[in-house]
Amino acid sequence: MHEILIEEKILARNDEIAAQNRKALSERGVYAINIVSAPGAGKTSLIEKMAAELKALGMGFAVVEGDLEGDLDSKRIERHGIPALQITTGRACHLDAHQVSHSLPWVFEQSGIELLVIENVGNMVCPAEYDLGEEMTVMVMSAAEGDDKPLKYPAIFSASEALVINKTDLAPHTDFDIGKARLNALKVNPNLKIFETSCRTGAGIGEWARYLAGVVRHDK
Amino acid sequence: MHEILIEEKILARNDEIAAQNRKALSERGVYAINIVSAPGAGKTSLIEKMAAELKALGMGFAVVEGDLEGDLDSKRIERHGIPALQITTGRACHLDAHQVSHSLPWVFEQSGIELLVIENVGNMVCPAEYDLGEEMTVMVMSAAEGDDKPLKYPAIFSASEALVINKTDLAPHTDFDIGKARLNALKVNPNLKIFETSCRTGAGIGEWARYLAGVVRHDK
Repeated sequence: MHEILIEEKILARNDEIAAQNRKALSERGVYAINIVSAPGAGKTSLIEKMAAELKALGMGFAVVEGDLEGDLDSKRIERHGIPALQITTGRACHLDAHQVSHSLPWVFEQSGIELLVIENVGNMVCPAEYDLGEEMTVMVMSAAEGDDKPLKYPAIFSASEALVINKTDLAPHTDFDIGKARLNALKVNPNLKIFETSCRTGAGIGEWARYLAGVVRHDK
Repeated sequence: MHEILIEEKILARNDEIAAQNRKALSERGVYAINIVSAPGAGKTSLIEKMAAELKALGMGFAVVEGDLEGDLDSKRIERHGIPALQITTGRACHLDAHQVSHSLPWVFEQSGIELLVIENVGNMVCPAEYDLGEEMTVMVMSAAEGDDKPLKYPAIFSASEALVINKTDLAPHTDFDIGKARLNALKVNPNLKIFETSCRTGAGIGEWARYLAGVVRHDK
């Protein structure tokens, strides 16, 4: 019981800081998305592939990378000429609003940023409860993971506005049924916008990037 | 600081209950393994495929399934004629020793059980810190996840005795380099026993099941 009360307090404090982040981002005209997924679903690859599409649309963006350890992911993003900041969480299985608040001065130093992409720690449970101050949560699900995932991890699908079903090129080599995955996801969250991408073949990346750019610019 | 102290207390209490579980299991001659992985790495499929091999070796086993919600996985296991008990964790991103302690009376009611397979919640972070009373932690990593995972989630690879690289049939369709995955895993934990399996083709399942059966029976 004590444990639950303490958790509620931590979440309430997180929500306060998230609201401050949201306000600060909005005042600077920066739209933030929080990308969540299981480990290895392809969040970083998706960001790398989106980069060319967003650049072609003239959209400036920066990336904040959440990982337990190391800077493998921010280095991958920087190779594409995109500003990237690594947050290491140590033992923590998710980013929180306080960690993101410390990255905002760096974001605001970059020039011409319309979009902040926050890549969360790979985890399908806890990130669902931690608002970071984003406008949109994007769930990435790999076609190699099994089409039952929305039923087994419903909270994170409920907390998301968009679902990107990634690695669709692997679907023919697995028992993954994209139609069933869509149905399961919509059962949990009927408002989800669903996209299908393959970072390997490039399929669907343009459609997803154009949708995202439209939302970012419509928001202004 | 308060948050860290409370966490240490929770972990210390968990360790006490885990030690009680370990003693109770040992007294009944039951060897327990704790299977951990990212969501969708194929833990349940691996258990399903191991079942035939273990049955052929005359080994009685039961399964405790950890999931946030639902009983999809325990139903899958029961279809193979194996006793399975579902634990639902709600919002919790891992099993803990207390939850497992409540499943032990059920385990001890089953007849001829030598091995208890505990399938943890799909999560590569928190299960690393929660001892359940098992003798062996088995990490399952899918070849669709990326060979850098040991470097990004080192704690769970350090906490494991065995690593099963699953979905090897997908490796040719991805950039996953099995040799690099092995090296990265051994960098983090030089004592890991590493196996390669494909639940789709059946490759490697026999070798893994025979190794496990050997360890279970040697332990007696």
